[in-house]
Amino acid sequence: MKTLQKLAPLAALLVLPTLGFAQDATEAAEAAAPGFDEIGPYIMTTLLFLVGGFLVMWMAAGFAMLEAGLVRSKNVTMQCAKNIALFSIAGIMYWFVGFNLMYPGDGWTVAGYVGTLFSPAVLEPVGLGAADASLDYASVGSDFFFQLMFCATTASIVSGTLAERIKLWPFLIFVVVLTGFIYPIEASWQWGGGWLSEMGFSDFAGSTLVHAAGGFAALAGALVLGPRIGKYSKDGRVMPIPGSNLALATLGTFILWLGWFGFNGGSQLAAGTVGDITDVSRIFANTNMAAAAGAVTALILTQIMYKKPDLTMVLNGALAGLVSITAGPLDPTLFGALWIGAIGGIIVVVTVPMLDKMKIDDVVGAIPVHLLAGIWGTIAVPFYTEGTSFVTQIIGVVSIGVFVFVVSIIVWIILKAVMGIRVSEEDEITGLDMAEMGMEAYPEFSKG
Amino acid sequence: MKTLQKLAPLAALLVLPTLGFAQDATEAAEAAAPGFDEIGPYIMTTLLFLVGGFLVMWMAAGFAMLEAGLVRSKNVTMQCAKNIALFSIAGIMYWFVGFNLMYPGDGWTVAGYVGTLFSPAVLEPVGLGAADASLDYASVGSDFFFQLMFCATTASIVSGTLAERIKLWPFLIFVVVLTGFIYPIEASWQWGGGWLSEMGFSDFAGSTLVHAAGGFAALAGALVLGPRIGKYSKDGRVMPIPGSNLALATLGTFILWLGWFGFNGGSQLAAGTVGDITDVSRIFANTNMAAAAGAVTALILTQIMYKKPDLTMVLNGALAGLVSITAGPLDPTLFGALWIGAIGGIIVVVTVPMLDKMKIDDVVGAIPVHLLAGIWGTIAVPFYTEGTSFVTQIIGVVSIGVFVFVVSIIVWIILKAVMGIRVSEEDEITGLDMAEMGMEAYPEFSKG
Amino acid sequence: MKTLQKLAPLAALLVLPTLGFAQDATEAAEAAAPGFDEIGPYIMTTLLFLVGGFLVMWMAAGFAMLEAGLVRSKNVTMQCAKNIALFSIAGIMYWFVGFNLMYPGDGWTVAGYVGTLFSPAVLEPVGLGAADASLDYASVGSDFFFQLMFCATTASIVSGTLAERIKLWPFLIFVVVLTGFIYPIEASWQWGGGWLSEMGFSDFAGSTLVHAAGGFAALAGALVLGPRIGKYSKDGRVMPIPGSNLALATLGTFILWLGWFGFNGGSQLAAGTVGDITDVSRIFANTNMAAAAGAVTALILTQIMYKKPDLTMVLNGALAGLVSITAGPLDPTLFGALWIGAIGGIIVVVTVPMLDKMKIDDVVGAIPVHLLAGIWGTIAVPFYTEGTSFVTQIIGVVSIGVFVFVVSIIVWIILKAVMGIRVSEEDEITGLDMAEMGMEAYPEFSKG
Repeated sequence: MKTLQKLAPLAALLVLPTLGFAQDATEAAEAAAPGFDEIGPYIMTTLLFLVGGFLVMWMAAGFAMLEAGLVRSKNVTMQCAKNIALFSIAGIMYWFVGFNLMYPGDGWTVAGYVGTLFSPAVLEPVGLGAADASLDYASVGSDFFFQLMFCATTASIVSGTLAERIKLWPFLIFVVVLTGFIYPIEASWQWGGGWLSEMGFSDFAGSTLVHAAGGFAALAGALVLGPRIGKYSKDGRVMPIPGSNLALATLGTFILWLGWFGFNGGSQLAAGTVGDITDVSRIFANTNMAAAAGAVTALILTQIMYKKPDLTMVLNGALAGLVSITAGPLDPTLFGALWIGAIGGIIVVVTVPMLDKMKIDDVVGAIPVHLLAGIWGTIAVPFYTEGTSFVTQIIGVVSIGVFVFVVSIIVWIILKAVMGIRVSEEDEITGLDMAEMGMEAYPEFSKG
Repeated sequence: MKTLQKLAPLAALLVLPTLGFAQDATEAAEAAAPGFDEIGPYIMTTLLFLVGGFLVMWMAAGFAMLEAGLVRSKNVTMQCAKNIALFSIAGIMYWFVGFNLMYPGDGWTVAGYVGTLFSPAVLEPVGLGAADASLDYASVGSDFFFQLMFCATTASIVSGTLAERIKLWPFLIFVVVLTGFIYPIEASWQWGGGWLSEMGFSDFAGSTLVHAAGGFAALAGALVLGPRIGKYSKDGRVMPIPGSNLALATLGTFILWLGWFGFNGGSQLAAGTVGDITDVSRIFANTNMAAAAGAVTALILTQIMYKKPDLTMVLNGALAGLVSITAGPLDPTLFGALWIGAIGGIIVVVTVPMLDKMKIDDVVGAIPVHLLAGIWGTIAVPFYTEGTSFVTQIIGVVSIGVFVFVVSIIVWIILKAVMGIRVSEEDEITGLDMAEMGMEAYPEFSKG
Repeated sequence: MKTLQKLAPLAALLVLPTLGFAQDATEAAEAAAPGFDEIGPYIMTTLLFLVGGFLVMWMAAGFAMLEAGLVRSKNVTMQCAKNIALFSIAGIMYWFVGFNLMYPGDGWTVAGYVGTLFSPAVLEPVGLGAADASLDYASVGSDFFFQLMFCATTASIVSGTLAERIKLWPFLIFVVVLTGFIYPIEASWQWGGGWLSEMGFSDFAGSTLVHAAGGFAALAGALVLGPRIGKYSKDGRVMPIPGSNLALATLGTFILWLGWFGFNGGSQLAAGTVGDITDVSRIFANTNMAAAAGAVTALILTQIMYKKPDLTMVLNGALAGLVSITAGPLDPTLFGALWIGAIGGIIVVVTVPMLDKMKIDDVVGAIPVHLLAGIWGTIAVPFYTEGTSFVTQIIGVVSIGVFVFVVSIIVWIILKAVMGIRVSEEDEITGLDMAEMGMEAYPEFSKG
């Protein structure tokens, strides 16, 4: 029906042929196109990237809701602002710098370590002919879209840890550096064909490249920023600061769980053969199993340890299960996914109080979930994946960890020195929403 | 771009050929693979299961938000915990027991009635060759993923009815039995090729197998559990207990509506022919129409009956429309979908007060929506579907109803006797969040 | 596995052959079906419509959450009711009148201006044979599903502007007229092959046909309805009325952002060639870029203008970026999408206070976002799209604007005269939830 719209301009070409060259070219290309038998795999893999990409994009909303639910109501507007801003900045920086820095092809600035600098991403022309397409792969535009979402996810991880005390603008400047440079460089070492991939490191969808990397950047920020006022009392006790809206936190977790099918499934990077689409199915099933196992483990463990099940631990247990399976969601059996995810859940329950003992104030538990479960998932890969070794996996984790942590802490220290990264004590007590944004998230609900 | 990652390990194989046998096998299989012309339908149907599956997974979040919005704020943390826990348990139990109990193939324990017991689901190997695939069907992994979500949906239905008074752990033990045994057994009677399917029963996507079954389990639980304190006064009046967050309840309904396209559309079970994909389109359109008709009918009817439109009835009207069309979303015309859904909406508006007269306390209206509209939808099938009969449809509903209700009520009674299923009166008045979980969902918002 | 279900009825046909003609016909059609090579494009484009359609359907939830978050808590139940009701009404009216009014084929009532009246949409028969399908296009059912969602979106835009003071039923009657007549008629001028498309107007996914049209209808309503009590003080000051739940407003924006990939991507109307699927990829990337640019621009601009970043402006900036790129999401480069979206963001920040100066009370900012950014996006098309002209684009915007605005204002005036469109002053102060619906959205949270 709506094709009439498409045909109408073509009819107009008969009158205005000089304007029509773009369409003519398209038509010619289509006329010469090979049959669907040849282009089917290209179309399917492109579709995998598009569907996977929009699912991972949805994770940005998941992080926003999880964090909005786990901060106090006086900081919710700020947390929402940070999340939509960081996702937007990632979208611009990954185009402007990140994509070609991460996938330099033959254009490395420092071979295997630093890709092509300041070369904005370019999409294929409109109406690409089949002859000009990488028929054994997919549309570059779909790949760009998909990879961009991974870059944004890395930044989302940071925002939760540093909530309730960091200023908006220094945080966003850090996001510029992280999404434009830090993430693309470390990710290029593996996914761009750099030195780690040549060494045989294996990180299927990014337990380390995305999640632990985001966690290391968050950890660096938390150390420079310090804990929230009132979190650790002078006599050494840890004061619980409950989240303001656990319904939203639960929603955020479900969103992340859903988005993760795109995150891991899309990372198969191909969907045009029986083997590939069946592998994607396997990844979906394993991803769901690991999340389920992480949640159930955290539920049982908190019941045993604290006599009461802890919802935020269950949510983080599910997420830790997801992070854990991300490095190798394809090769394990369903039982393998179960125990990998379950250990992720244990890690969260055990390490959240440990971080508090170290007075590292991580508002949403992003460091246990993304950094520690991410490391676990990466190191667990050789249990199921041929051709990988524990040593290489550890080298990968350590090298990415050192790089991201060191560069991040330098950036945080510079930001602290130049403009300050923390709001005043008064503003922190008032809440960032009124102090920095002048706008409450729930202005009508009186605070208990 | 990211293919570089895939090529790098292959290059490594030249150096370490002994480690590479898994990849070698894959390569060999792909080399011998038939053309896309032959594998296209397999890929499309697998994709249908994966997309349909993630949409149905999203319904778990819909139930969580609907229920979190319809309970009082003092029970929201518990309701969120139950929803994420039941979904996780379903994920484990359906793997461990359910899938092969539901789809025994030739391995029935009791032919046509009970499938294969305690045989965990197994996915296809990594890098499946086309020669080893069911090219006239889809990836087993995608089917497992899709069917798992139906199992989880059945459990989600139960949690709403029993909210605000049931203990966490007995509820979760019931979920173990429901998702591991009750649902797979009754569903095997039809979808596993058991006695009901041989009799000619028709339930396309599960008005009875999923929705009424969940409703029968919920009804059994409600009878054993009894109503909430204060719901029915001693002089016989019904006290309204308003939900705490209708914005979340609305969100939950929209999520369920969206997920239902996967629920019904994916149940076409094929997408690789013109007829199948066109049928899926038809199902999408009919599903939307039935939901719209249910919502509009409930809106008009509550305006007429109560002089004010009732939002929770409109939400449940939409859901009842969806449940009603689920038994036969393919064959009706759009007008057929309209009146089937509209009657679903009427059923909800009329039966919610009837349940209250019987002092059956169903917190979210799951029994009218899922049980009664589910029965309606199943019985309506012969109006549009050739080869079905009202008698057979009724036999199906009754037999599944009796089985699920009787087994469920036995399980509930045992749980009540062994560990108790209801919180103390004091805890119920305090709210389950503080009493059972020690954590409020909205700690900062003072309660009216 | 579940195929057993499909095979069982076939086996039954051996016993009851007289009932089986529908299935027989299907089988015969499939036997004669052409290979996947021929039907692949039909399947892919149908799939594009189905996936695009469910993403746009999800936008209805996005509007509901955005609006529920931006109104005061005393009007949230009403706003949720309006959103689910308008979406349902659109689903019925677009079937009953809209679809064939918008796509008359050769059946124009007034050639190029008014399509076929009162001809309900009809889906293809069940089990369509390939010989009966438009193999160079897609399933009519999928197209109907996709187009319906655009019609519903147009109505969603109106509900936000008129919030907090309009009565439910006159609003819904307007929705009946808008979704059944106004939208289908003006959209037929372009997408139905009417006079605007013949003139060479270009509006890829509906910056004008959907967004500005919705905005014009909202503007007409706002003028007839007048501003909320207390919005504009007698001495000419503008009183801010903060939204009650910015977390939900943020969620709504993320939902809309996600849905927009379906909105713009699906409007490629084809996915079965290398050129088409690559174009869809391009559209996804450009759509994301424009949204990101709109958000970042609004963030920076509000920081500069008001010394504090404004979250609601950032959200509306993202949406304005999305609306801006909608008229031409394919042809611009990523840099083009960036500046088109950025100007959309500027438009919102600059025009929100201008509307207030004119005492046009637009509760959620829908007129700046959808009407003004929609006009901007439409006029910007010739910067990148061959064969378009600024003059024709302006003619399109003006003619659709005049038509929608004039018809809408007539309908609003009639509704005002016949039944009144505004609640009483007392009811407005009490809040529509208690006054019109008898049900609070957050009954337990005391109001500040």
